[in-house]
Amino acid sequence: MFESPLFWPAHVKGNVLYVLDETLVPSKIKYIPVHNVKEAVAVIRNMKTRAFGQFLVVLNTFLIEVKSKKLEAKDIEKIAHALNNSRPTFPFVEVTDIVVGVARKAAHENADVCKAVVRTVKGFLEGIRHRRLERVRRIAVHIADGDHILTHCNVSGELAMAAAIAIKEKKRVKFYATETRPYMQGAKLTAWELQKAGTHVTVVPDNAVGALMAEGLVNKVIIGSDRSAANGDVANKAGSYQIAVLAKEFSIPLIVLTQPSKGVATGHDMPIEIRDADEFLVFNGQRVFGSPVKGFYPGFDVVPHQFITEAIAIHAGL
Amino acid sequence: MFESPLFWPAHVKGNVLYVLDETLVPSKIKYIPVHNVKEAVAVIRNMKTRAFGQFLVVLNTFLIEVKSKKLEAKDIEKIAHALNNSRPTFPFVEVTDIVVGVARKAAHENADVCKAVVRTVKGFLEGIRHRRLERVRRIAVHIADGDHILTHCNVSGELAMAAAIAIKEKKRVKFYATETRPYMQGAKLTAWELQKAGTHVTVVPDNAVGALMAEGLVNKVIIGSDRSAANGDVANKAGSYQIAVLAKEFSIPLIVLTQPSKGVATGHDMPIEIRDADEFLVFNGQRVFGSPVKGFYPGFDVVPHQFITEAIAIHAGL
Repeated sequence: MFESPLFWPAHVKGNVLYVLDETLVPSKIKYIPVHNVKEAVAVIRNMKTRAFGQFLVVLNTFLIEVKSKKLEAKDIEKIAHALNNSRPTFPFVEVTDIVVGVARKAAHENADVCKAVVRTVKGFLEGIRHRRLERVRRIAVHIADGDHILTHCNVSGELAMAAAIAIKEKKRVKFYATETRPYMQGAKLTAWELQKAGTHVTVVPDNAVGALMAEGLVNKVIIGSDRSAANGDVANKAGSYQIAVLAKEFSIPLIVLTQPSKGVATGHDMPIEIRDADEFLVFNGQRVFGSPVKGFYPGFDVVPHQFITEAIAIHAGL
Repeated sequence: MFESPLFWPAHVKGNVLYVLDETLVPSKIKYIPVHNVKEAVAVIRNMKTRAFGQFLVVLNTFLIEVKSKKLEAKDIEKIAHALNNSRPTFPFVEVTDIVVGVARKAAHENADVCKAVVRTVKGFLEGIRHRRLERVRRIAVHIADGDHILTHCNVSGELAMAAAIAIKEKKRVKFYATETRPYMQGAKLTAWELQKAGTHVTVVPDNAVGALMAEGLVNKVIIGSDRSAANGDVANKAGSYQIAVLAKEFSIPLIVLTQPSKGVATGHDMPIEIRDADEFLVFNGQRVFGSPVKGFYPGFDVVPHQFITEAIAIHAGL
């Protein structure tokens, strides 16, 4: 089975954690070696890998730390603390708390703290991997022969792997990827991994989605999401909402990869993060605009559940 | 009255035509001196100015040519021929034919060919200027106190000048300009001239329009158009159509600046021009995407008339 490098962008070899530098893809495929928690924190802070990759870095950091030294519960707590502080807005604490709990319990029972941590972390990783692979197979079922599928931003390997399965099943399928300003994840990551998967992919500017649909070039939209609400609303990369409105206008089904909602009732409970406008006003270190100008750059937007034809959830756990 | 440099980007001083290099705005404000038809053709071919500026270059080239030498009707024909061939897909012939006709008629009547050409061209230019200024005033009427107006691409000065009128009338008004990939006319030209007009302007990525409207930050959309059909459909920069769909979704009025339809019945008669994908896959000379990838880049899209709340036409007459 074809596996996209973005599906599992961080893995341990010996005592070293190798993290794919996603900021360089596809110009350069480089793995950053991480030897300890300090280096792990730097990789997360410098955004060398994105949400899922950072989550893998957090979990694997416990593995490389316990592999290289004999640690006690209080050392595990320190590692957890450092990781939690690497990106305070991210809920790393949800997993680090569990690892710390296991370490404390082992210490309390005079059991081997390191072994308990390794067992827990490995169990986590295996479970996540299993559930993601299982979702890849469910996504593949939604890809039909003759489909022309539009996607936005990047869904970390799963769509490309589902496409590879569809191709193996002799389905003829074509993809359109929005370039996804300002970071161009569509043009850089999605187009790259879909090409690696052996599919035909075309990149379009974010403002060409309307023309694409008006010309009848797309019959299905598949996007990921960063966060789900209990009522089915999802938050995803800015631009998802307008693609959803256009899909509805053209009666094109919108398929969204989702996750457990974790106590958020509706999309209204997910206030839009307004990011630094320089993130899009500066391109490759060069100001797009000469004199100072104000910018508005929402980090994501919310797609109300009424627009979603089919949600493919990752099964719960963790 | 405030006049945006983009409203009239080419003007004659003495025997020289000065053309604003719009490709450098706003980093550098530079006027290219044009001394003859050969240099005029180069300015048009190199796309230093856009549609309206090119039209001004065509007309003014006759002026500088007859000012610097004594020309006969056959010389006027040669100039017209060279200008028509500078960009064969553009209907320059509609105006050059009239100038050639006037020259021939003058020659036939033993009148002064140069004087006849100057009179005709100056009459054209004054008429166009008058009608555009008149439309600026009509646009200003549509700007209300408290408006938050979204615009797309660039409408060559008129919107900025209407904004300046509105401000003089003590209307509080705020603008949002889409950056308009791939050439960033919104971030570069529109934001610049709206700032020069003294208005508050914020640039947004093309994929943030949905979020902008969902957050209730916009109550009006004003865009230009490149071409109008008899039924009211318009062709404009790619992205206009999806903005129109979103405006309808949020019941936000869409105001479009239009022109005479010149025999095109509906939007279906305006086939979408698919431009070279390198225009957006290469940014500042650097490939966005590492390995070769296909791109789809429509030069414009069509907004069906049902989406247009109000069309502000430029009055007829070349």
